[in-house]
Amino acid sequence: MEKKTYEELDRLFDFFRLIDREKFIGRQTYLTDGERKENDAEHAWHMAIMTILLAKYANEEIDVLHTVTMLLIHDLVEIYAGDTYAFDEAGKETQAAREREAADRIYGMLPEEEGRRLKNIWLEFEAQETPEAKFARTMDNLQPMMLNDSTDGRSWVEHGVHLSQILKRNERTHCGSEALWEYARESFLMPHVEKGHIIRD
Amino acid sequence: MEKKTYEELDRLFDFFRLIDREKFIGRQTYLTDGERKENDAEHAWHMAIMTILLAKYANEEIDVLHTVTMLLIHDLVEIYAGDTYAFDEAGKETQAAREREAADRIYGMLPEEEGRRLKNIWLEFEAQETPEAKFARTMDNLQPMMLNDSTDGRSWVEHGVHLSQILKRNERTHCGSEALWEYARESFLMPHVEKGHIIRD
Repeated sequence: MEKKTYEELDRLFDFFRLIDREKFIGRQTYLTDGERKENDAEHAWHMAIMTILLAKYANEEIDVLHTVTMLLIHDLVEIYAGDTYAFDEAGKETQAAREREAADRIYGMLPEEEGRRLKNIWLEFEAQETPEAKFARTMDNLQPMMLNDSTDGRSWVEHGVHLSQILKRNERTHCGSEALWEYARESFLMPHVEKGHIIRD
Repeated sequence: MEKKTYEELDRLFDFFRLIDREKFIGRQTYLTDGERKENDAEHAWHMAIMTILLAKYANEEIDVLHTVTMLLIHDLVEIYAGDTYAFDEAGKETQAAREREAADRIYGMLPEEEGRRLKNIWLEFEAQETPEAKFARTMDNLQPMMLNDSTDGRSWVEHGVHLSQILKRNERTHCGSEALWEYARESFLMPHVEKGHIIRD
């Protein structure tokens, strides 16, 4: 094999080794055992399978591979920028700048074409304009909601979360799928408002 | 929304909640920190991204979404059948029967069409006949090899693994990609034979 190919593979595998760190980035969501919290890699894996099975519920037809790719990589920036909890208002102020810098570092490791391709998919997710980006955001909001529901709302209770905060965070969840947002609201949120796990305001 | 749709969504989300258990199925591979071992969900996520970036190295052209789907789901059977370590000869004898029964239970939870579709993709992986199944197997073998290399061969050393065992397990790794198998052998295996982390026989 020529030298050039090995150089390219070395860059690709440097990237694959780096992204292993995604498995150490903790989220606030408890897994279904109600004890351990999820990490970013597990979260992405879960949403990718959900997308493959839920794509037909999207408001507009989506390219499934493109959406899955987006979900698999969309949190990689947190390797350098850290996770920002959904209801951490201070952290959210500096989040965009931190994440853009992180994206340059991470995707800059890849061969140029692949790096540009993945960075553009990440930017597309952030811009929230395409059907794929909208559906990916719907998944990103629904998956932790499903887990919070299945752990009797533990994460919501611990953070004293108000319904208004959840609804604000989810104000665009319906843009990816009206059907799934309706289902999630009825199945995952409202029962916990009734039980007092989410504070009604 | 009609009742029927909710019934379908309930089945889909029952499946999504079940597969959360994948995150608790441990593997023998250490992550790049050299301390924590990987779980099945993290492993699948990692391979899915690798596939998206390495597909062009496949011997034959592959359908990337199909291969990614295969990798995301291929270990779900372990939720009921348990993980079988690559060099556990006793466990491997009963593995096929245990996994087939597990596949019926797991994919039987889904709406019929989706269940059949995913079960067929799993069977395709097991049969190792299509370019996608072969490439998926290549990823399944390369990803832990990469991690073992980056932790100075810790898992190989702990299990006293012989080169002949690794080569036997990898006798079909080249079927998915000659180029990647050559790269992996030279970059991930042979240096550890030299260092004595893998026992030469």
